[in-house]
Amino acid sequence: MKQANKLPKSRQALDQVSELTTNRLSVYLRCLTSLEEAGVPTVSSRTLAEQFHLNAAQIRKDLAYFGEFGVRGVGYYVRDLKRHLRKILGLDRRLSVAIIGAGNLGLALADYPGFRQEGFEIAALFDSQASKVGEQSRGGVPIHDMRDLKKIARRDGISIAMLAVPAAAAPEVIEQVVGAGIKAVLNFSPGTLKVPAGVKLKSVDLTVSLESLSFFLAHGEDEK
Amino acid sequence: MKQANKLPKSRQALDQVSELTTNRLSVYLRCLTSLEEAGVPTVSSRTLAEQFHLNAAQIRKDLAYFGEFGVRGVGYYVRDLKRHLRKILGLDRRLSVAIIGAGNLGLALADYPGFRQEGFEIAALFDSQASKVGEQSRGGVPIHDMRDLKKIARRDGISIAMLAVPAAAAPEVIEQVVGAGIKAVLNFSPGTLKVPAGVKLKSVDLTVSLESLSFFLAHGEDEK
Repeated sequence: MKQANKLPKSRQALDQVSELTTNRLSVYLRCLTSLEEAGVPTVSSRTLAEQFHLNAAQIRKDLAYFGEFGVRGVGYYVRDLKRHLRKILGLDRRLSVAIIGAGNLGLALADYPGFRQEGFEIAALFDSQASKVGEQSRGGVPIHDMRDLKKIARRDGISIAMLAVPAAAAPEVIEQVVGAGIKAVLNFSPGTLKVPAGVKLKSVDLTVSLESLSFFLAHGEDEK
Repeated sequence: MKQANKLPKSRQALDQVSELTTNRLSVYLRCLTSLEEAGVPTVSSRTLAEQFHLNAAQIRKDLAYFGEFGVRGVGYYVRDLKRHLRKILGLDRRLSVAIIGAGNLGLALADYPGFRQEGFEIAALFDSQASKVGEQSRGGVPIHDMRDLKKIARRDGISIAMLAVPAAAAPEVIEQVVGAGIKAVLNFSPGTLKVPAGVKLKSVDLTVSLESLSFFLAHGEDEK
């Protein structure tokens, strides 16, 4: 029998859920979506692992942490598990996102189709350059004046900001973002940033990914 | 005494170096660069850990795998360790990178300053849209015709391709990339791609990062 979705209650328990775990939950969600699209009603952890090059024991451990989702002899109901995962990840409500910086990167992020598919709403772009204000991205996201961040963040209920500004501008911009009451920041600028307690900052360092490919090229070639 | 830089010799040993390890080596390298810029000559694993919110035991373990870099009573020589890490990561030679897709994302990647800082050369953009061919990014990266990929990849010694194309185009594009003899691919398109053995594919899923923020917002707010 399936039990109710149990979420870890204390701050301590929450801290134990590492970013690596939430990253894996995101990957499981992506796999379940593709199974659902293929019309597959149920899946075992073993099949899920084999099909998507994952680890079956890890899947069971990750999911067990949040409740008892498996059904003996059946595995997981794809739609049910997907709904549970969306709830665990906080995707059962619409999240509004602002992008700071309407350069190439900001405009690319504004129209990135993956975000909308998962229920994120890219509500607004912000830039300090007057010539950009009043324009919009190809997909129709409006570009606002950076000075209106606080006002529009409140009006549109923005809870996440993505930073796509030059590294030199990032420290000042992040202060404005925090000042506007936004509690979660995804940073694409190189370099280290600081945020006050209660604000979650996650940085995407594109160079790290490239360096792991460089490692592969350097040592894969040792073998020849 | 410092010993020579030991690299794992067998394919088996190489496979044991997980992507998580190379990601951490990249982070250490970034930290050492910022220490070097601040004029710090030596650093202990403990100080390194404290200053950059890392794990000292993990640092020692990661580095010990590749050789004996620490000096008793001193710690690590910042410049030496940085040079060793660059060598381990294959960054002691110039790597040429091509970007496939000259849309907003491709143009943003072409001018991303972090890549050049670490010694990657963004040599060329490719697009199948005739109106873009012959143009260049703001930073001066030329946009070539996709049909010339193989020719230019050979001429410019391109070893890494970044995919910044729509998801629907990605499977065909990756075949062309592999056909051009490129052995390492960094993919920014949503969805799963396949590559033949001997080619390394790494995907950056921007939605995963956003979902880990969503998790924080959902459960951080439980506490209030």
